[in-house]
Amino acid sequence: MSARRTGRRPGSPDTREAILAAAREAFAERGFDAASIRAIATAAGVDPALVHHYFGGKEELFRAATAFPADPGRLLPAVLAGDRDGVGERLVRVFLEVWDSPVGAAGVALLRSAVSNDWTARLLREFLVTQVLRPVLDHLAVDPAQRPLRGGLVATQLAGLAMMRYVLRFDAVADAEPATLVAAAGPTVQRYLTGDIT
Amino acid sequence: MSARRTGRRPGSPDTREAILAAAREAFAERGFDAASIRAIATAAGVDPALVHHYFGGKEELFRAATAFPADPGRLLPAVLAGDRDGVGERLVRVFLEVWDSPVGAAGVALLRSAVSNDWTARLLREFLVTQVLRPVLDHLAVDPAQRPLRGGLVATQLAGLAMMRYVLRFDAVADAEPATLVAAAGPTVQRYLTGDIT
Repeated sequence: MSARRTGRRPGSPDTREAILAAAREAFAERGFDAASIRAIATAAGVDPALVHHYFGGKEELFRAATAFPADPGRLLPAVLAGDRDGVGERLVRVFLEVWDSPVGAAGVALLRSAVSNDWTARLLREFLVTQVLRPVLDHLAVDPAQRPLRGGLVATQLAGLAMMRYVLRFDAVADAEPATLVAAAGPTVQRYLTGDIT
Repeated sequence: MSARRTGRRPGSPDTREAILAAAREAFAERGFDAASIRAIATAAGVDPALVHHYFGGKEELFRAATAFPADPGRLLPAVLAGDRDGVGERLVRVFLEVWDSPVGAAGVALLRSAVSNDWTARLLREFLVTQVLRPVLDHLAVDPAQRPLRGGLVATQLAGLAMMRYVLRFDAVADAEPATLVAAAGPTVQRYLTGDIT
């Protein structure tokens, strides 16, 4: 048991923190797809089973490591259910619901950190691409060659909304009813996902 | 001469710095419109004529105080000349030209600072609203009641582009040809300026 070899007790807060630190490094350096639970466990000096025990799967570990306050796996079904042409509006609506809720403060902290810290920026990028954009683009069966650009464009609109509503606090955007922003930015996101962008 | 009273020599770097410090405070606290050269001069302990001598008008003082690397007064004519339906594309094109140029690094520094510092955020907001968005919305004769929201929406798309291309560096957005982003985001900006957003 490698956990014993390094002297870490499986149940201690130290062990949990060591796993999270190793996970942050692995996800930032190798990206979500290439990072493995096994390698993270080795780096943390624990057994992979312990990582699963604490965090479940790789998605959950990623979310814990990046301190992401929202769970796309729980939120995305509401975005993807329903007509294909409404995904953009539903994505903006759910996005605003999360950021307008109490967890939004954690989102602002994360965005601030990502802007000043290259490492957090990489984690945020990985999170957006693999946990949010990829499932949406998959669901819509978007041409794989176009996915990076289309996903990136969606990210520009969502990140810009977050910046103006919650960070820089442009009055008209910060004070707008969610429905107003959904009506304005929903079609933009929809066009970036499935419309003509050339 | 109040410059003499405070012991500051008109030609010294101290004087220039004192004016810029007073200007930053005035613009952040009162906003661009309410801040006056006279009040800034008083706060800096110099004669208003000296402020004009160093910096010219209020726009130039604002740009120097906020260290904005680009001059919208010089750039906007190229955006506004031409057909009304092309303003969105031309605004995105000029925006990317500025950020892709060597001065873009200063833009990134400014965005980083604005995200972590409320004071810089206010200055950036004032700059965007009064120096970029207002002239564009004026030129297009947009319904005054709709200007704050329309301007704010344009800001979400431009800020999001800057975030993804230059700060968080999403590959597909960071590596895209400017023309690709103009074709994708230009119509978005145009719709926010003059199209149906309800």
